[in-house]
Amino acid sequence: MTVSELGERALLARIQAKLSTAGRHRASLVIGIGDDAAVVASTRNAQTVLTVDALVEGVHFDRRYSSPEDIGYRALAVNLSDLAAMGAAPAWALLSLVLPGDLLVADVDAIAVGVAALGQQFGCQVIGGNLTRSPGPLIVDLTAVGEVRPRRLLTRSGGRPGDELWVSGSIGAAAAGLEMLRSGLDGGRGSGAADPADVAGFGNCIARYLRPEPRVRLGRAMAQARASRAAMDLSDGLADAARQLSEASGCGVEIDAGRLPLEPAARAWWQAAGKDAVQHALSGGDDYELLFAVPRSWGGRLRQARARVAAPTLTHIGVLTKDPGMRVLLRSGARESLPAGFEHF
Amino acid sequence: MTVSELGERALLARIQAKLSTAGRHRASLVIGIGDDAAVVASTRNAQTVLTVDALVEGVHFDRRYSSPEDIGYRALAVNLSDLAAMGAAPAWALLSLVLPGDLLVADVDAIAVGVAALGQQFGCQVIGGNLTRSPGPLIVDLTAVGEVRPRRLLTRSGGRPGDELWVSGSIGAAAAGLEMLRSGLDGGRGSGAADPADVAGFGNCIARYLRPEPRVRLGRAMAQARASRAAMDLSDGLADAARQLSEASGCGVEIDAGRLPLEPAARAWWQAAGKDAVQHALSGGDDYELLFAVPRSWGGRLRQARARVAAPTLTHIGVLTKDPGMRVLLRSGARESLPAGFEHF
Repeated sequence: MTVSELGERALLARIQAKLSTAGRHRASLVIGIGDDAAVVASTRNAQTVLTVDALVEGVHFDRRYSSPEDIGYRALAVNLSDLAAMGAAPAWALLSLVLPGDLLVADVDAIAVGVAALGQQFGCQVIGGNLTRSPGPLIVDLTAVGEVRPRRLLTRSGGRPGDELWVSGSIGAAAAGLEMLRSGLDGGRGSGAADPADVAGFGNCIARYLRPEPRVRLGRAMAQARASRAAMDLSDGLADAARQLSEASGCGVEIDAGRLPLEPAARAWWQAAGKDAVQHALSGGDDYELLFAVPRSWGGRLRQARARVAAPTLTHIGVLTKDPGMRVLLRSGARESLPAGFEHF
Repeated sequence: MTVSELGERALLARIQAKLSTAGRHRASLVIGIGDDAAVVASTRNAQTVLTVDALVEGVHFDRRYSSPEDIGYRALAVNLSDLAAMGAAPAWALLSLVLPGDLLVADVDAIAVGVAALGQQFGCQVIGGNLTRSPGPLIVDLTAVGEVRPRRLLTRSGGRPGDELWVSGSIGAAAAGLEMLRSGLDGGRGSGAADPADVAGFGNCIARYLRPEPRVRLGRAMAQARASRAAMDLSDGLADAARQLSEASGCGVEIDAGRLPLEPAARAWWQAAGKDAVQHALSGGDDYELLFAVPRSWGGRLRQARARVAAPTLTHIGVLTKDPGMRVLLRSGARESLPAGFEHF
C-alpha cells in the first residue's frame, strides 16, 4: 500500500505508534505528538541546544543503497552529531517528512523505526513533526533539541593559538564506503575482493556511511571534564572542520598528515585505485567524528574524559596557529595547502 | 546569479545578514547562526513549545502566484499560528531551506526577508537552520519555538460537553483567494470584475491566502485570561478543526451555519459560481484563524480577553456535545453531517 492510498490521518497514527513504542518517556514531556505543537518543561540550570538537518533523496542518499531504516537512523544521527559537538545531551526531536505519494507505507514505517531505534539509544524522543506530500524526492528533515549546563558548552570559536587538535575515531571510512556502494560492492558480498580482511574492512566502511554513530558520549565527556575549548563535528570532512573551527577561533591551523587516523580499509581502497588516500580522507564528508581544540596544559582533563569514554579513541593530529590565514598540511616534511571542504551547491 | 553559481558558504553568509538585520536580539540568545547548533537560555517558569511545518513547491505554493517574500512570510506564519493555538509567545525559529540549484540568489534573499519581517513583528528570531540542494521542488521547512507559562497552555483536548465554540476573524477568505489566483485574477487588477467593492474584497481574499496573519496576540490573550480550555488553529479548515478538537476532547460537535463568519467576498465568489459557499468555507484550508472552546460560565474571562485584543473579532458558532460520534452542521433547521477536512495525501 502507498501513502496516497492510506491517507494522511491513518499514516500519522501509524508513525506515531512506531515512534512511541520505541521511546521511553521523559518526565518533562508535557504534550507530545497530536496537538498543534509539542510542549516540554524546562530543565533547571540547563541551556537549550537546537539544530536541524535535512536528508534529501538524490543529494544525501540513494534508495538503491540506503534502506528506509538507514535513512531514518541517519536523519537523527547527523543531528545528534551536531548536539555532541556542542557537548549537549539529546532530549527531543521533531520529524518533518516530505513523502512522494507512491512511497510504500512499509517504507515510512521503517523510516520511523530507524529514527526511534537510535533515539532510544541516546534518550532522544520524537515529540512532534509534520507530514506532507512531495511532488519529487523523499525528504527527511529533522530538528533535534538537547540540553547542556551553561559552562559546559563547546563552541567552534573558543580555540586559541597553540591549542592541540584532536580527532575521534578514524577518518575516510564513510567517503570510501559511499564509493564502494556506488561501484556496486555490497559490503564485499558478491564482489571480486579475495582477501577476507579487505572484505570485512570494506563492509565496515559501508556501515560507517550508512549508519554513522554520533559521538554523543564523547562530546559530553569532553564537555563535562572541561577538556576542550572548541569543538566541531566532521559532517563535511576533517579539512572543512579544521578550516571552520580555526576561522571561528581567529586562528590558523596546521595538520600533520603522518598523524591522521585513516581508516585502513579506506586507505587500501584509495591506494588500489591509484588515488591520494590522505587527500580523499581529509576532503570526504559523512564521518561524523568530532574535532577538539585542547590547550597543552589540559592534558589531565583530557585523560579524565578519555577514561570515561573508552571508544572511540582520540588522536592528536595538529595545532592551532597564530596566523589566521594559514591552513597547512604537513606531509613528508613539506607544507601543502589544506584541501577545501565539500560544498553542497 | 543562481545559488549554484554563488556556492554554499557565500549563500549562508547572505542569508545570515538578511536575517540578523531584521531581528532584535533577545538577551537569552547564547549562540546563533554559525555553530554546530543554536543555544538559548531557559526562561524561568516557562514551558517550551515546539512546532514544525514545511511548505513544498507544487503542493503548498506556486511560484507563479506567491513571491519569494510571500513564501518566507508564510513559512513562519503557519508555524506562529500553531504556537498561537497553544497560547504561546514566539521566541525562536530554525529555517531549513531545500533549494533548486538554478534558483536565483535574489529569490533566496527575498525568502529570508519575508521570514525576518514577520519574525520581527512577533519577536521571533531565526537562530539557526540548514541549507541543502534540491533535485526538484523548492522547500521551506521551518521549526518555531515558543514559550508559555505552565498553567496558561491551551491544548486541543481540554474541551467538555456544553462548551461554546468561538472562532476568530472570518472564514473562507484564503480558500477563495487561492481559487481567484488560479483562475487568473490578480487581486481584481485586469479582471472582468466591474464592482469596485468586489475588486477590493477579492484583493483581500488573495492577501489572506498569500500572507495569513497568525493570531498570536489573540491566542496569548485567551490563554492569559484563562478564557478558553481548548484551542486549535484552522490550517486545514474549520470543519477539520472542529472535528479534531472535539475528537481530542472526547466530545461531539454541533456547528450553526447561520452563525458562521463567512468572508463576504468569498461568499460572493462562490455564489457567483453556483457553489455552496458554506461548504466551501468550512472545508477550505489556509485561514489560520483560531477555534476556542469556552465554558458558558467563563463569559467574564472571554470579555476580558476580547478587551485586550480588539481585532480579530470572535464569533460564537457552535457547541461541544456529549455524543463523541456526532459531527453536525445545523442549517436552516436541518441537521447535516459536518464536511470532512482537507487531507494532504
